[in-house]
Amino acid sequence: MMALSQHIIVSLLRVLALGGTLAATIVMVTSHDSFHFLGFTFVANFTNSPTFKYFVAVNALVSGYGIIVLFIHPNNLGARRVLLVSDMVVTLLMDSSISACIAVGEVGKKGNNAAGWLPICGQVSKFCGHVEGAIFAAFLASLLYFLILFYSFHTLLNNFYTLKS
Amino acid sequence: MMALSQHIIVSLLRVLALGGTLAATIVMVTSHDSFHFLGFTFVANFTNSPTFKYFVAVNALVSGYGIIVLFIHPNNLGARRVLLVSDMVVTLLMDSSISACIAVGEVGKKGNNAAGWLPICGQVSKFCGHVEGAIFAAFLASLLYFLILFYSFHTLLNNFYTLKS
Repeated sequence: MMALSQHIIVSLLRVLALGGTLAATIVMVTSHDSFHFLGFTFVANFTNSPTFKYFVAVNALVSGYGIIVLFIHPNNLGARRVLLVSDMVVTLLMDSSISACIAVGEVGKKGNNAAGWLPICGQVSKFCGHVEGAIFAAFLASLLYFLILFYSFHTLLNNFYTLKS
Repeated sequence: MMALSQHIIVSLLRVLALGGTLAATIVMVTSHDSFHFLGFTFVANFTNSPTFKYFVAVNALVSGYGIIVLFIHPNNLGARRVLLVSDMVVTLLMDSSISACIAVGEVGKKGNNAAGWLPICGQVSKFCGHVEGAIFAAFLASLLYFLILFYSFHTLLNNFYTLKS
């Protein structure tokens, strides 16, 4: 039902996406920086923000999913429909975690005058660098998931076309 | 190709989703509050934050899209595929704008100790109420878009099944 070349393309995209989500998780978890001010030590860590914790949770979860589906090659149409819907949910989760991180990261980088929130990336640049790297890796992974979604959707429909004609 | 009952269900979902995105846009645009502190007046407005501006842009864009597609009822399969992919992009955009808003809204409500960002919702509660309302309306709309996506996907595939048998 599903050609070998389609299997190979989707598997390759999945391996790359898995690399992206794993990298995003590791880079975010290892983000750590501190600075001293008036005798106090401030520590920047991903656990300080619920948004960054959510990002790590989503990327770790999607990495687990990415490993499992590498071994699943459904041949019947029902199972391929289920896989396509779960890929859609994964893409939405990735999209959500990246957008949330960019929004908070933007405040960290530029601050917000109206709210009186000062930028912090000048003080904890190593931390901000990690966050940026993690967002970039997750963004690449989510693009790959979008490609997988798009490709699976069209091959699934084209298989129907082939059956029809 | 597409049954009348399917048309009616999808159109109904689209009208409800349009109501949600329109409400989200209007409620966010009309959010406005101010407070006085040490002789200064601070004004809270959606234009103060790039995240809230992005939210308004996405919801206004999706509202426009929602109006246009109400008048489009493609009967051929190619056009239905294109519509499904554009619904997917719209769902991703909504998901992204809501997640970003929730992330920044959470900082507004609870602040962030590690970054030294104080909560502001105590001072501008009217503004925060509007933001919460707008997020809620957009969330309902994005759930409806997910339903539309899910339903269109399955009816599209089932039509193929019917053709096949």
